[in-house]
Amino acid sequence: MEASVVVVEDEPAKIRSKVGEFPGKIKKVAEDDPRRIVHSFKVGLAITLVSLFYYFDPLYVGFGSSTMWAVLTVIVVFEFSVGATLGKGLNRGLATFLAGTLGFGAHHLAALPGDKIQPILLGIFVFILATTVSFLRFFPRMKVRYDYGLLMFILTFCLISVSGYRDEEVLRMAHKRVSTIIIGGFTAVFVCIFIYPIWAGHDLHNLAANNLENLATFLQGFGDEYFTKSSERESNKASLQGFKSILNSKQSEESLVNSARWEPRHGRFKFRHPWKHYLKMGSLTRQCAYRLEALNGCLYSDVQASPETCAKFQETCTELGKAMNELAAAIKTMSPPYSHCAHIAKAKNAAGNLNSLLRTGLRKDIDMVEILAVATVASLLLDVLACTEKISESIHELASLAHFKNGKDGKPDMDKQTQVQQRSNSIVLNHVITSE
Amino acid sequence: MEASVVVVEDEPAKIRSKVGEFPGKIKKVAEDDPRRIVHSFKVGLAITLVSLFYYFDPLYVGFGSSTMWAVLTVIVVFEFSVGATLGKGLNRGLATFLAGTLGFGAHHLAALPGDKIQPILLGIFVFILATTVSFLRFFPRMKVRYDYGLLMFILTFCLISVSGYRDEEVLRMAHKRVSTIIIGGFTAVFVCIFIYPIWAGHDLHNLAANNLENLATFLQGFGDEYFTKSSERESNKASLQGFKSILNSKQSEESLVNSARWEPRHGRFKFRHPWKHYLKMGSLTRQCAYRLEALNGCLYSDVQASPETCAKFQETCTELGKAMNELAAAIKTMSPPYSHCAHIAKAKNAAGNLNSLLRTGLRKDIDMVEILAVATVASLLLDVLACTEKISESIHELASLAHFKNGKDGKPDMDKQTQVQQRSNSIVLNHVITSE
Repeated sequence: MEASVVVVEDEPAKIRSKVGEFPGKIKKVAEDDPRRIVHSFKVGLAITLVSLFYYFDPLYVGFGSSTMWAVLTVIVVFEFSVGATLGKGLNRGLATFLAGTLGFGAHHLAALPGDKIQPILLGIFVFILATTVSFLRFFPRMKVRYDYGLLMFILTFCLISVSGYRDEEVLRMAHKRVSTIIIGGFTAVFVCIFIYPIWAGHDLHNLAANNLENLATFLQGFGDEYFTKSSERESNKASLQGFKSILNSKQSEESLVNSARWEPRHGRFKFRHPWKHYLKMGSLTRQCAYRLEALNGCLYSDVQASPETCAKFQETCTELGKAMNELAAAIKTMSPPYSHCAHIAKAKNAAGNLNSLLRTGLRKDIDMVEILAVATVASLLLDVLACTEKISESIHELASLAHFKNGKDGKPDMDKQTQVQQRSNSIVLNHVITSE
Repeated sequence: MEASVVVVEDEPAKIRSKVGEFPGKIKKVAEDDPRRIVHSFKVGLAITLVSLFYYFDPLYVGFGSSTMWAVLTVIVVFEFSVGATLGKGLNRGLATFLAGTLGFGAHHLAALPGDKIQPILLGIFVFILATTVSFLRFFPRMKVRYDYGLLMFILTFCLISVSGYRDEEVLRMAHKRVSTIIIGGFTAVFVCIFIYPIWAGHDLHNLAANNLENLATFLQGFGDEYFTKSSERESNKASLQGFKSILNSKQSEESLVNSARWEPRHGRFKFRHPWKHYLKMGSLTRQCAYRLEALNGCLYSDVQASPETCAKFQETCTELGKAMNELAAAIKTMSPPYSHCAHIAKAKNAAGNLNSLLRTGLRKDIDMVEILAVATVASLLLDVLACTEKISESIHELASLAHFKNGKDGKPDMDKQTQVQQRSNSIVLNHVITSE
């Protein structure tokens, strides 16, 4: 009995605390990515613009109640990034046009044999088309790029062919509907592109660079952290965990690539920028992140190693981190990476020294516990080294595919870099959420 | 010149080969998950059913052109699993009702000051509401469960309040629209639940068991594989890679959990089954899969170890694999795991022996290269062991949360198990695709 009383008494307090937390939550959502506020205002603007059709007689007279479809299209098509909006808009436009034509044909075909058979024929057409197109939606390629279009195809076909049974002027209705949908789509795309555009390609590019920086942060921190006693460790470990977002980045990356492929040239990205190549880079980055996750597990054991071993370890980690940072900078500045090779070579050298140190250590009969623990880390670091080389190769590929040019100094502006990093963190989060 | 001629000649051949591949692709999509065919037919049926409203005068007279909304709702709400359909249907229904009421209120409020100010007031209302609700969609909790509802909220509010400017009988229009949307929603939910239902909860449960089985397959195979020479290795390595699907399973798992939470009790799953707990289990399973990915990287090195070391290694892997299989079976049969403890204890024992073997091996001065390589694998296996214990704990938690009961023998029916495994493979794939 007492327990239930407590629950009842807690309810208002719980609600009060939830309401109290709300302004904080609003602030957090807005601060994570300030572009969310801009996006919300853009949606409001686009809908208000298109609803003007209702208020002005000269505009309304032409379309009548079909104006509804313009409002509906803006609401459904307007997405966070330009690419996603364009993709949805083109899908909707094309699907409406094709399905409208087909629905019109079906309507006339069904009307030929006479009034009694017409509804039966229409029902059969609708059943066959809906079943077929629903099945097509399971094809992976269709799913990725045309899923929304296929849904709209079913929708328009049904509306035109079936409601044509009641509305005598099917052609006029179909024409009005297509026109208003096109008007709605254009309004959405126009507002999306010309007022503070948010480019998926830009986000994808930053995400790739930011992921490499997260790897670098972990590697550079790991060297110091690994030989710290566990009691002193807690405080700065949180800063190392940035790489964890990479582990589950596959789907948000795919959705960004998919949106970016619909975008026209913008900023530093030319037409036919090799967006698909970012999937390859992303997959290699994740390979590397899996190794870091295993390394992260090694942080929990207390290891005492000789100062010599410590130094070699730290050197390897630091050089790997520098190489990663250089690769990230190459992506950011869109210049071919060149100085990283020195860091990779140094990391290789340090890893080689580390290995031979461990081996000669055996002869001198150091503590075996140390050797076993340290050997794991050394071997994982060698894996990371191999990953780094592969990532470097794929960035060279990207550089040649996208015709990166060498800047005068090739070094990124550091202040800008920090800004971009802060921004990118929220981009990752945002896209993980919006892509679900 | 010659190159372009070749390209032109190749085009028809390319198209021909693509067309030729098509039947094979259809077969593959259908075989990966035969329920896709069933789903497609269900969609066709539901749409045909709801379009009957157009054909029969008594039905059509009541709703008129609002019948369109019933067709539209079925097409948009009908999803692959019952949970997803229910979630979308409830979202749409509730959002339409609330936004309809609010839109009706806004329409009347705007009409009060007079005809000239009405469109301006309406425009302001629409702008404020669309902006606010668009921003709300970025809140992670809203995004996960109510995203579609929020979109429908904007849509209905705009349609009711704005088109009310032209249509005098707003209340009648709103009432018709809500009724037809409810009819459409019910048709979709009815067909989805009562004709060969596809439960997201069931798929999620199988996915959890199947993932553990994939871990077991890798672990059991790894023991043998690791000491095979690389030249003999290629053939059977593909069978080990099943665990890779786990690495990127987070989002499909989340979408399944989200759908499952909308589902009523079904089959062996009671009302309030702890679906959220599957996220915890999934995250631990992925932790384990990351270690396996690192282990997988070790497969590429040629290692010669003493027969004694080999034996201990294989024992550890085999016992870990058995423990995983037992855990998977516990999930499948929904009985608390009990026999796994023996396997985990055996695995611990074997790992302990392996460690001491390696240490004494050092004294006997075996090849250091071997020690270093083998130490890595041993240490990763210890990590896997720790993960296995955590997974086991979380399954015990699930067993107590969901009140698993001990069966008479507690052992799964093996034939059934194989069937379920084959099925689950396609489920994973399907949900990875459909959840994008």
